[in-house]
Amino acid sequence: LLTHLPIDDRAVQYGDGLFETIAVRAGRPRLWSWHMNRLASGCERLRLDMPNPDRLLARTLDAVQQAKVNQQYCLVKILLSAGSGQRGYGRTAEIRPRVLVGVFAATPQPKKHYQDGVNTLICDTRLASGSPTAGLKTLNRLEQVLARSECAESDCFDAFTMDAEDNIICGTMSNVFFVHGDTIHTPRLDQCGVRGVMRSWLVENLPAHGFDMQQRRLPKSELPDIDEVFLANSQFAVLPVRRCGDRTWSVGRITRKVMALLREHDVVEGP
Amino acid sequence: LLTHLPIDDRAVQYGDGLFETIAVRAGRPRLWSWHMNRLASGCERLRLDMPNPDRLLARTLDAVQQAKVNQQYCLVKILLSAGSGQRGYGRTAEIRPRVLVGVFAATPQPKKHYQDGVNTLICDTRLASGSPTAGLKTLNRLEQVLARSECAESDCFDAFTMDAEDNIICGTMSNVFFVHGDTIHTPRLDQCGVRGVMRSWLVENLPAHGFDMQQRRLPKSELPDIDEVFLANSQFAVLPVRRCGDRTWSVGRITRKVMALLREHDVVEGP
Repeated sequence: LLTHLPIDDRAVQYGDGLFETIAVRAGRPRLWSWHMNRLASGCERLRLDMPNPDRLLARTLDAVQQAKVNQQYCLVKILLSAGSGQRGYGRTAEIRPRVLVGVFAATPQPKKHYQDGVNTLICDTRLASGSPTAGLKTLNRLEQVLARSECAESDCFDAFTMDAEDNIICGTMSNVFFVHGDTIHTPRLDQCGVRGVMRSWLVENLPAHGFDMQQRRLPKSELPDIDEVFLANSQFAVLPVRRCGDRTWSVGRITRKVMALLREHDVVEGP
Repeated sequence: LLTHLPIDDRAVQYGDGLFETIAVRAGRPRLWSWHMNRLASGCERLRLDMPNPDRLLARTLDAVQQAKVNQQYCLVKILLSAGSGQRGYGRTAEIRPRVLVGVFAATPQPKKHYQDGVNTLICDTRLASGSPTAGLKTLNRLEQVLARSECAESDCFDAFTMDAEDNIICGTMSNVFFVHGDTIHTPRLDQCGVRGVMRSWLVENLPAHGFDMQQRRLPKSELPDIDEVFLANSQFAVLPVRRCGDRTWSVGRITRKVMALLREHDVVEGP
């Protein structure tokens, strides 16, 4: 099992690669095909060879079986590096991508996070707009690192980043959904941000189950008028937001319906 | 000597770190204090502890002495990683930065590059604007990797990237200077791009030596009216540009004066 990367690896040098963070529940990687779809679109954008998903699944299950963690409930990180190459930004023809698979212990969210919601803030760190890798889970994650350090200084669960025009884009480790009346809005991620797999699942499945769903720009100025807010990520699935800065919400009707839908589809934990 | 990074290192996972690429000429790192200044401002922005520059110099000279390359003429890469930490974007209090020092062989530019200039193009890859790490040499370099792959498909020496508003920002591995009449313009790098040390040297020293120098936005539409173009980076110092797309130039009077100034200050090679 590969545990170290050489200094000339392009993941080390330039963040030239992609990653996936996958929840293992009841011993199985959850939303596997969604993770593979995102990895494939990342490979296409970065012009890397997509690993064979079946072999990657076999390797993932093998890594879980060898891991000294709760193998029924843990987290797998797949890291795809562009591989070693000569110094310089250009990839040489001979480089071969490297795949690392790491297995980590995972801790379920406290029940009260699902029941009462979590606290958030809007952070000062802005996301750059017009990124050629917008939406992808690349190894270039300094914006999230900087935003996360602001979040850590508060005692908030997550922090929202905005673009330069005060549009809310993402949490540092989650995607965000705003309910207004009967409509669920989630920020468009064509300029910046990360398209989480749980977000993709919701964007595809919510309309099919009768929810009104829109992707659009979400200026911070609309926050006071929003009725419910919830977060989504691959690990905790969906969590209600109780507070963002001064604004507070109780856990809303639509948020509960979304959480119930996830439970029906066996993609959620929590009460 | 550290040659590998563990998978949980934050440089590997998030590109959480910085680097410097330093020219060694006559056995000495060139523009050392400029590299240290940039590294320090990067550390401040990323909230990393700046390594002691004297110890870093000792380690650099030691690495050069042990390297199986031409020790008089080579290239040192210093990579500062935020270190290993728990999974997740947040840095834990206990993490300790890691410093890697690599020494690589360097090849002087052909004389004709200095005499006749080099070919360039404007590439399709755009730089994101409003980056919280604009100007810094962080380990998040996917934009340059993507731009460089366009450059490699041409037979150009370097390729210019633009922001979304068609302003020319940087070469993939160089900064760019445009001469109009007697004035030298170089793009502002407050929204994106990398502030090269050779650029910083020129921005500080050219006005002191009677050159008229401006940092400003440089829209592509001005290119036809430009009289001379030159590139700067820490390795080749200054190179004239002979061509960008359809537009061609001969090596100009101001460019020659800048190259002469660098020779006077012993920071250039070439004829």
